[in-house]
Amino acid sequence: MTRSDRSPHGGQPPSGTARIAVDLLGGDSAPAVVVDGALRACSADPDLHLLLVGPRESADEVIGALAVHDRERVSVSVVDRTVGMGDAPMRHVRRESTVRAAAEAVYAGRADAMVSAGSSGAAVAASAHVLGRLRGVRRPGLAAHVPTPHGPVLLLDVGVTIDGTMLELVQHAVLGAAYAKVALGVTDPRVGLLSIGSEPGKGDRLRRAVAVALSDTVLPAGGRYIGLVEGHDVPRGGPADVIVTDGFTGNILLKGIEGATAVSTVAAHRTEAVEAPHVVAASKGAALLGVAGAVVVCHGSADGPDIASGIALAARLHRERIIPAVAGLADELLTELSSAGGLTIRDALGERS
Amino acid sequence: MTRSDRSPHGGQPPSGTARIAVDLLGGDSAPAVVVDGALRACSADPDLHLLLVGPRESADEVIGALAVHDRERVSVSVVDRTVGMGDAPMRHVRRESTVRAAAEAVYAGRADAMVSAGSSGAAVAASAHVLGRLRGVRRPGLAAHVPTPHGPVLLLDVGVTIDGTMLELVQHAVLGAAYAKVALGVTDPRVGLLSIGSEPGKGDRLRRAVAVALSDTVLPAGGRYIGLVEGHDVPRGGPADVIVTDGFTGNILLKGIEGATAVSTVAAHRTEAVEAPHVVAASKGAALLGVAGAVVVCHGSADGPDIASGIALAARLHRERIIPAVAGLADELLTELSSAGGLTIRDALGERS
Repeated sequence: MTRSDRSPHGGQPPSGTARIAVDLLGGDSAPAVVVDGALRACSADPDLHLLLVGPRESADEVIGALAVHDRERVSVSVVDRTVGMGDAPMRHVRRESTVRAAAEAVYAGRADAMVSAGSSGAAVAASAHVLGRLRGVRRPGLAAHVPTPHGPVLLLDVGVTIDGTMLELVQHAVLGAAYAKVALGVTDPRVGLLSIGSEPGKGDRLRRAVAVALSDTVLPAGGRYIGLVEGHDVPRGGPADVIVTDGFTGNILLKGIEGATAVSTVAAHRTEAVEAPHVVAASKGAALLGVAGAVVVCHGSADGPDIASGIALAARLHRERIIPAVAGLADELLTELSSAGGLTIRDALGERS
Repeated sequence: MTRSDRSPHGGQPPSGTARIAVDLLGGDSAPAVVVDGALRACSADPDLHLLLVGPRESADEVIGALAVHDRERVSVSVVDRTVGMGDAPMRHVRRESTVRAAAEAVYAGRADAMVSAGSSGAAVAASAHVLGRLRGVRRPGLAAHVPTPHGPVLLLDVGVTIDGTMLELVQHAVLGAAYAKVALGVTDPRVGLLSIGSEPGKGDRLRRAVAVALSDTVLPAGGRYIGLVEGHDVPRGGPADVIVTDGFTGNILLKGIEGATAVSTVAAHRTEAVEAPHVVAASKGAALLGVAGAVVVCHGSADGPDIASGIALAARLHRERIIPAVAGLADELLTELSSAGGLTIRDALGERS
């Protein structure tokens, strides 16, 4: 692979207005950190328009903090605790309502992309339901950009496919290869499968089956399957541009890497401790692949700069038309895989019942 | 929990001779790094005796590099390429032979403990076969000491239980609690289950079942189950002293944390880059729990200081009688769990067929 200019358009990233729906109630410290993130995003990007989805008072907090001439860039979709299903726990009701309303704004064309933090399950379910999945996709995957000394590694899935299946992981390899080309500018992306050793045959039952299936799968954008990679290959980078795993393992690994990075950075260089985690902020906004719309999901523990970074990623997904381009590259392969979905782990491993 | 003096004996760690069998052919860069590690270990610990298991020429390299008066501390068990099963790949044959010979030296009383790097599968299989498992133990677990700002976190399993089962994870919680008390001096150890969120019910099918089972399990040494923890809780420390997971997830997380730590440390503080990984070297020698003998397994990618750290851990396991003490604390519970082993995931989750 070679890494060309990060923008597939060769020059400055396309600008132009990007209207981003932001779920004010997503995340452990919502709405405070989301308000902070929205303000940071507005000040960093003059062509950004925000549709704030949530309680009136939180939206007003954002608007009140903006200069008067910036206020026209913010609109509000009020969703508060009066919306919901009555008996369910209040926080749950509010959460479901805002993330769903954000997805509906994208579906209706009132926003170009959406950002939510917190429970990725709720965000993914609402996005897939409202926006629809790409043709043939069994389950969407969350793709995190992990910074490494060799450039970003795309790790997916980091939270959707909790009891992952072979078909899901193979489809994510296809989506990941297409995204690496379109969003990261990687030509001929190298796709690795995360396991516990790099020698063929290493891993659990699912990994052994997926490895067999990936060896037989045509990947888009010149992508090729390079075999098994290990946990350290994600933060170090090097062997693969795209690393595929199930959402349980991917979520734990991503959080482990982020925790270790924060701890090491604090220990080694205390004065940079506050800023250093934001150097790696790109990894905190994950792009949802396999859904017919631009959706970014941030950590539940995201802070303001993380949310701003998620909003910036969402704007980029829209401006560079990344999701339609990924769908175009992956469509045929996803449909083929889906119709071959009768292939089971048992088939791949050549087991007899 | 409180962390008392690291030595359960209250003062200086017990010294006295420790005879460690060292597998010269374990690890990706064997025998060179093992030779280096053996020399470092000898110079750090004057009461250490080594039984070097492997080719004559590698053992001679160690002996030749020692001062004359130190040479009596090293003995050799020659195992080379002439030993083995003929047709199998040479490296495989040699590897199996040396790790097995090291285990046999411990079993026969010619060594007090053993250290091997590289394929943990081979090391664990040989140890379990030759030394035997503790009564009731379904599968042993490799326990890594992960350094955190709050003191070491014990993470297990990091490589044995690849398709982990509920019984294996619950037994590892028992062994981990006992080991945290005896080896790390933690009173009332807090045991967490690794998952993708800390709220009850988060995780895959296995995690949901294990969480139910752990809530009902008596843990030794005053240990108590504190619920689900996340990937970042391993490097950050804080909520739990012992973190239980399957060997697939644990291996990937441990390597991811080590990779991220190495990358961050290099990036933040280049002058300390060479030394910094060794600050966390304790995590590279994992103690094997559930086997009737003192066994330490190092990474395949271990370097000399890592191997030396593994040898030091093995010596400590012997000198402080850690393995028999763990067995004493855990024996009754392990046996009980084993005879209740008919409990299935389906039972724990209350599913109906």
